Amino acid sequence: MRALPTVETQFFTFAKSPEDAFVLESGDRFGPITLAYETWGELNADRSNAILLFHALTGSQHAAGFNPAVQGCEDLWTEECQIGWWNDFIGPGCALDTDRYFVICINYLGGCYGSTGPRSINPATGRPYGGAFPTVTVRDTVDAQMRLLDHLGIQCLLAAVGGSLGGMMVLELATRYPERVRCVIPLAAGHHATTLQRLHNFEAIFAIEEDRNYNYGDYYDGDPPRMGLMLARMIAHKTFVHVDVMEERARGEIVQAEDDLKGYRLRHQIESYMLHQGKKFVQRFDANAYLRILYMWQNFDLRARFNGDAVEAFKPCRHQRYLVFSIDSDVCFWPEEQEELCQALKMADVPYQHITVHSDKGHDSFLLEPRFYAPYLSYVLDETWREIQAGQAAGDRAK
Amino acid sequence: MRALPTVETQFFTFAKSPEDAFVLESGDRFGPITLAYETWGELNADRSNAILLFHALTGSQHAAGFNPAVQGCEDLWTEECQIGWWNDFIGPGCALDTDRYFVICINYLGGCYGSTGPRSINPATGRPYGGAFPTVTVRDTVDAQMRLLDHLGIQCLLAAVGGSLGGMMVLELATRYPERVRCVIPLAAGHHATTLQRLHNFEAIFAIEEDRNYNYGDYYDGDPPRMGLMLARMIAHKTFVHVDVMEERARGEIVQAEDDLKGYRLRHQIESYMLHQGKKFVQRFDANAYLRILYMWQNFDLRARFNGDAVEAFKPCRHQRYLVFSIDSDVCFWPEEQEELCQALKMADVPYQHITVHSDKGHDSFLLEPRFYAPYLSYVLDETWREIQAGQAAGDRAK
Repeated sequence: MRALPTVETQFFTFAKSPEDAFVLESGDRFGPITLAYETWGELNADRSNAILLFHALTGSQHAAGFNPAVQGCEDLWTEECQIGWWNDFIGPGCALDTDRYFVICINYLGGCYGSTGPRSINPATGRPYGGAFPTVTVRDTVDAQMRLLDHLGIQCLLAAVGGSLGGMMVLELATRYPERVRCVIPLAAGHHATTLQRLHNFEAIFAIEEDRNYNYGDYYDGDPPRMGLMLARMIAHKTFVHVDVMEERARGEIVQAEDDLKGYRLRHQIESYMLHQGKKFVQRFDANAYLRILYMWQNFDLRARFNGDAVEAFKPCRHQRYLVFSIDSDVCFWPEEQEELCQALKMADVPYQHITVHSDKGHDSFLLEPRFYAPYLSYVLDETWREIQAGQAAGDRAK
Repeated sequence: MRALPTVETQFFTFAKSPEDAFVLESGDRFGPITLAYETWGELNADRSNAILLFHALTGSQHAAGFNPAVQGCEDLWTEECQIGWWNDFIGPGCALDTDRYFVICINYLGGCYGSTGPRSINPATGRPYGGAFPTVTVRDTVDAQMRLLDHLGIQCLLAAVGGSLGGMMVLELATRYPERVRCVIPLAAGHHATTLQRLHNFEAIFAIEEDRNYNYGDYYDGDPPRMGLMLARMIAHKTFVHVDVMEERARGEIVQAEDDLKGYRLRHQIESYMLHQGKKFVQRFDANAYLRILYMWQNFDLRARFNGDAVEAFKPCRHQRYLVFSIDSDVCFWPEEQEELCQALKMADVPYQHITVHSDKGHDSFLLEPRFYAPYLSYVLDETWREIQAGQAAGDRAK
């Protein structure tokens, strides 16, 4: 294994004044907004080599390398966070080849790893937003990220890449700003929340909001809604990891601390495993931020802007190229969802490749098994990159 | 539709004295125990025509006809409970033909519809058991029901029938008391709790026990853990009903009362539908009873008594005959589970028929679609009944 280079989170703040407002999808104005982000590789002179990577539900801007701490969220930045979540995908010679490309990853608006979110100080009150933080949407998150691209002078991305909820953001970006991306790569994602996802998300929202410590989101002065957030994570976790993998990982002692549960005694390894997942998670995440991100997912339907018609949504995207990944064992974003997406791309006459990865790991495969994704990622990025360069050469010759 | 005959719940109490103790699987002695039960048809002279029907997770002894109220649980006996849950399966000429057979259904030990459970008065304290009610098992529930059969003078059942958790009880009875049943009919069930079931059950247990009103089960003097029980029901409900059916049923207004949730505003019909399911359920069920029944399910593994070997478990059952139903769209007890069960029956040389019903309703099909089950039920019961009569005639001739 190569030694991990240290990466530092950077910050960009905008919407600092009423003249420079950020208008949410709800119509409300919101600001100031800080985005926490990291970059790898070098932006080239004509700024044509940028790849925007979207993290998933509870990921962060820290996609590759080693980052020992992020300013303002030292308490949540556990060891688990310190190694980039897509470390094996990003670097010299990797799928996202930093010898060639400039990769950016930005913490979601509403998150808890440095971007403005419910834990941030509301300048109007001098206290954390808490429950007063607005309900932001996938569109809002994408719009905010575009402001950072503007700031960096990136007019058109070489590619937008993301898995899970991050893949939903990729699709939102591609259809909302068709001229600003060439290559569109959603992994294990879909173009709208499904009923099953909404059921799981609703259970998770309910679990957090009914925690005795939740207090309508204003809990930063007291105990956080730890048990509710644990339950929310357990509800989600089982859809991320294949049941056989969970069983395998669960083989071990049944561990229960005195204060874990109100009466129930663990009897099965899978219970102990799941409780451990929940406990690990609450160390590194804020319940209000989790709620904001669940709301985004819950309310995402790319078709809504197009009268419910996905084909209409993708019609302006004919100059883009899509690489759509399915995972056969995925029970969070079922392969049927990518099938539906590709059907819409086909009807809209948008070029795409659809690849189904056969994995026994379930949804999380896209985080764990670079060998399944890297060859196609490299190939499609390389081809797009050569097209861009050929176009530029032609342009140069025409001058 | 035929007019519904009125049926009254009867009660049987045993283990009233130390000499007549009931020993739980845990080794603890427990009593007195009252069982609430109903019967349909007439027990014949030699008591050979009895069918024991087990209800599912939150069912009751009231399987057919109309029962306006059950003594001691009038508050929980909502309109939903008044019509028998298998009404179309039981009656003259029905699958369980009351012109021929005597059908019994008994509320689980630990339940809340008249059998001794956490809401019952603990004679030692004069107050409800609450959290002090023991953790009972599938075996305990079956053993208790056998005490009622003894009381009725039924030595050998014509059949044991049950769906879901009720089917697990059927299998426990058949392997624990092989001489006491001829025909064994589990519908959409399995011979052990699966990992996925345990994950869902654990979430539900967690949801109830973390409710601010739970108080380790001693909540009868105050508010019950209503929100936790609602969440527990929502977690389970999505595994009972096929997602397409839920979508179909969810088409309607989005209804939210002011006090439903702590901040979240419903935006999707499926959320409103699910919340409604939860709210309906908490009207008719006690959280402590729900926990006791979840514990039973969570800890059920018929193989445990046989060194983990299901084939060994079924070897004493070669004189029985099995009718095993699968539902192709079942995501609570997946068809793979009945496949595994039948594999064990085959290896143990036990006669069985395995029928897969193709339904779009999911697990609940066995409650909703009598036409899929009735023909096989009638056929197998009739054949067994004729065998018994032929055996008796042969016995009479030999006299």
